[in-house]
Amino acid sequence: MTYCLGILLERGLLLASDSRTNAGVDQIATVSKLSVFATPGERLMTILSAGNLATTQAVISALRQAYGTGETHRDIATSTSLFDAAQKIGDCLRDVLAREASFVHPYGDPSASFLLGGQILGEERRLFQIYSAGNFMEASERTPFLQIGETKYGKPILDRLLRFDTSLEEAAKLTLLSFDATMRSNLSVGAPIDLLLYENGSLEARRMRSFDEGDPYLAGLRQGYAAGLTTLVEALPLPDM
Amino acid sequence: MTYCLGILLERGLLLASDSRTNAGVDQIATVSKLSVFATPGERLMTILSAGNLATTQAVISALRQAYGTGETHRDIATSTSLFDAAQKIGDCLRDVLAREASFVHPYGDPSASFLLGGQILGEERRLFQIYSAGNFMEASERTPFLQIGETKYGKPILDRLLRFDTSLEEAAKLTLLSFDATMRSNLSVGAPIDLLLYENGSLEARRMRSFDEGDPYLAGLRQGYAAGLTTLVEALPLPDM
Repeated sequence: MTYCLGILLERGLLLASDSRTNAGVDQIATVSKLSVFATPGERLMTILSAGNLATTQAVISALRQAYGTGETHRDIATSTSLFDAAQKIGDCLRDVLAREASFVHPYGDPSASFLLGGQILGEERRLFQIYSAGNFMEASERTPFLQIGETKYGKPILDRLLRFDTSLEEAAKLTLLSFDATMRSNLSVGAPIDLLLYENGSLEARRMRSFDEGDPYLAGLRQGYAAGLTTLVEALPLPDM
Repeated sequence: MTYCLGILLERGLLLASDSRTNAGVDQIATVSKLSVFATPGERLMTILSAGNLATTQAVISALRQAYGTGETHRDIATSTSLFDAAQKIGDCLRDVLAREASFVHPYGDPSASFLLGGQILGEERRLFQIYSAGNFMEASERTPFLQIGETKYGKPILDRLLRFDTSLEEAAKLTLLSFDATMRSNLSVGAPIDLLLYENGSLEARRMRSFDEGDPYLAGLRQGYAAGLTTLVEALPLPDM
């Protein structure tokens, strides 16, 4: 399983993913699900992947190979908007599935989905979710975060505390708490957590960090949250019944 | 959608359900999903229902009609253990599905599942989950809570704070917070929340309460939790990145 999260913020974007992949309980590995495509000063695009690993890797590899070649249908280095890039990624996913799906179906689900966040010079930063069908939708101020994979365990804390005007750093803290809730409840989501903070207009990936299982900040955050939550709930009144 | 929760506690049991049922966004109604079958001083059995409403109502009605009649296969008033009662409920579900499933399939999913909690004189209190297949499993000290329906949003707070030796009243508070998280994230789960606290050996349903949307305790709990969580998370350090 996978958990990926993209957040559209007033001051930029946040993109995060876990790193666990498994094909059964005895086959657990770590892969990066966060891919950066950048031409500094001109464009920064980050793709988060969920679903069948062969499918997501085929899509990312095809996009990587085409990057900067000028290939009309695949090269997201030539997209003049993030909307156009999302369309190319959706088309690429459709191509991969057209080739692979019938062979993979007898063994499992070949489908995949993506989050695309970034900025291209001349536009604001934008955030898209690309569905298994290859179509896509965009995040807005009213729906500032998008999730793919194991989305539910980590949603309540975002629903409660995340706002469009939350700072990038506060959003990073909330993201790590959202991932912690998910990893506690679903063992197939696991560290390291890859996290990218993107500041409006910077057009490059300056602030990126990987939080592994033993990361001191992550450990302190988990401990502080657990202790604080215990104290908070204990202090709330009991129902009369 | 539905959210039902059963908790096996050192001092008894907790059983809770929401009350929303819907067949599409324009058809939302309120039904009770918590059914009590009791012979005070001898047995208390509570059934929580999730899934197709026609199926769950057919099962509960058949059990209700048979209660105390001595009918061998259906009467859970004659079960000498909660295990036997769970088996009768599973069999009853199989009978209903054998009759209905082929007709319902073209229109939707006929399946249903149940939680059964209670105590029969001569046994400890016990808690079972009855699957759509009619088979079932029992909660234990190591797995003290069972959920059916929309289970994920409300799980993290239970994973963090609920223990086997939690008091009934503290468990009730945690349950309402778990339901609140679920109702905030999934609009098809809704109040009133029916809640039953069962004390070991009492063999009757003394402590039962319904919390509707405007319930002052529930409103205060929500507000106190939201405010406390905001303060708690704000006080946690920011990541260095």
